[in-house]
Amino acid sequence: MKHGEAAVGIDVGGTNTKVAMVSARGKLLEMEEIPTRSQEGPALFVRRVCRVVAGWKGRGPRLCGAGLGLAGDVDSEKGSLRFTPNLKGWDGFKFKSAFERGLGLPVVVDNDANLAVWGAYVLELKRQYRNVAGLTLGTGVGGGIILDGRLYRGATGSAAEVGHLCVEPGGAKCHCGQRGCLEAYAGSYGILRTARGLLARGGSSILSRRKGLTPLHISQAAEQGDALARKVWALTAERLACGIADIVFTVNPEAVILLGGVSRAGKWLMEPLRRELWKKPFKTPFHSLVLRAADYHNGGCLGAALIALER
Amino acid sequence: MKHGEAAVGIDVGGTNTKVAMVSARGKLLEMEEIPTRSQEGPALFVRRVCRVVAGWKGRGPRLCGAGLGLAGDVDSEKGSLRFTPNLKGWDGFKFKSAFERGLGLPVVVDNDANLAVWGAYVLELKRQYRNVAGLTLGTGVGGGIILDGRLYRGATGSAAEVGHLCVEPGGAKCHCGQRGCLEAYAGSYGILRTARGLLARGGSSILSRRKGLTPLHISQAAEQGDALARKVWALTAERLACGIADIVFTVNPEAVILLGGVSRAGKWLMEPLRRELWKKPFKTPFHSLVLRAADYHNGGCLGAALIALER
Repeated sequence: MKHGEAAVGIDVGGTNTKVAMVSARGKLLEMEEIPTRSQEGPALFVRRVCRVVAGWKGRGPRLCGAGLGLAGDVDSEKGSLRFTPNLKGWDGFKFKSAFERGLGLPVVVDNDANLAVWGAYVLELKRQYRNVAGLTLGTGVGGGIILDGRLYRGATGSAAEVGHLCVEPGGAKCHCGQRGCLEAYAGSYGILRTARGLLARGGSSILSRRKGLTPLHISQAAEQGDALARKVWALTAERLACGIADIVFTVNPEAVILLGGVSRAGKWLMEPLRRELWKKPFKTPFHSLVLRAADYHNGGCLGAALIALER
Repeated sequence: MKHGEAAVGIDVGGTNTKVAMVSARGKLLEMEEIPTRSQEGPALFVRRVCRVVAGWKGRGPRLCGAGLGLAGDVDSEKGSLRFTPNLKGWDGFKFKSAFERGLGLPVVVDNDANLAVWGAYVLELKRQYRNVAGLTLGTGVGGGIILDGRLYRGATGSAAEVGHLCVEPGGAKCHCGQRGCLEAYAGSYGILRTARGLLARGGSSILSRRKGLTPLHISQAAEQGDALARKVWALTAERLACGIADIVFTVNPEAVILLGGVSRAGKWLMEPLRRELWKKPFKTPFHSLVLRAADYHNGGCLGAALIALER
């Protein structure tokens, strides 16, 4: 990586894909969102992304590489998906070599949550911390772990699948098919299930009149003093604390950072979460832990470009 | 480390302490067990251990260092205990400098489970694997994590406190004061509680006549075809699988190794454990996982010496 260089970051979602050009200092120089259209197959998708990048020709600094974030079980070495619930028929396709041919650049392929956490780490935490765990709180819950200043991938690239930590054996159903996963409580669908459960028990709340409920509505209601909404965040914090405690007991990071839409719930989530973690009888790893929500919410495409710049 | 060198390994238990001289190839050259007598204070203890080592003078190869394993929250840099439930009044004492003066050797101080796992790793797994998690199954449950071939300690030396992963929120009481910890089910006191619970419900078993029940008795009864004993191991395996799955989802190791007395339960524990882990919907990290019980059961003193030899 040199100053005056840039990289391409590609964050593939089930519906839309973000393509960005990012400078070596982490500045977003260009960004375009295109529909993913997974049913058209991965080869056509690669061509459409390459066309976006080609359109930036001559506009920015020299490109030195590209990073690609995919939701699912990613084989980083082969640069392909082993398994993906949202991009049907895309597993097995060799994204790394296809993009390397299409862009004429070296390409890094990784899990989208790993790259989002890497981005937040580089932009917000790298100067102070070497060992960090990040959780991406969206529809699902993912994560990334940074050890000794580097993204830790594990034996098969499956490290930090923290959405599937068990926080309630036999509990609520998770999208993965198991029961009681962290995601089933702290993913947005889990949070909405908790809210609907409390509303069904007849709690009085401004949320009971709300159609198309989202976690943002629950945050706004909590802000307005709604007791049921605050209870939803307290219950979510309890489950999230259980998952974070498991991560802390295992890897003992200096900091835990929360990313994604749900992390914007602010103090209604963060305050009960801190209280829960502070209560642990093993004081050292918890009392020294820095816990914060990311300021930076640009998804995986910044992180994808930043990891390519790291190479 | 050179061939023809050796190190001292010291494994401090609440009742007894093992002191060993270990060769660079991991061979146990000398071993002595002395009472810990924690009530006499740490300074006298250090002197008694040093006297044992002095007694070996001239007998083995040149000593290049010593390793000390302590149960509790260890500050490896200072070489002292921050907190310990079993060695009252020993916290804060500077073991590292006291032993360095007493032995005239460089001394490494670490958590006893970390060192036991390090020993098993070096002797059994190092040639094949770089990322390994180990669980020590004794009265309590501890652990150690090896990443990229090195013992991983975390931000405050508290990594791999896997006995306190939450496997049942609000569940059985753990020695740490929390409820539902892995140790409360897979530590020997937890296993005995499970057995007593089944016996109290009136299950017919050869264990019902047994006084002073131990996990070994439960293994022997399982071997003899006792259905209640086998049920105890199946229930223990279920909880242990939950904790191991949390570790796998977090650090995705190539291998998990079980150490300590309980790991000798053999197939009555290992077979249901493998079945539980194999069921996970995330196949890659679990289907590639090597799970085994350690062949080597010499406690922490071998690992303590081996980590000193690593320096």
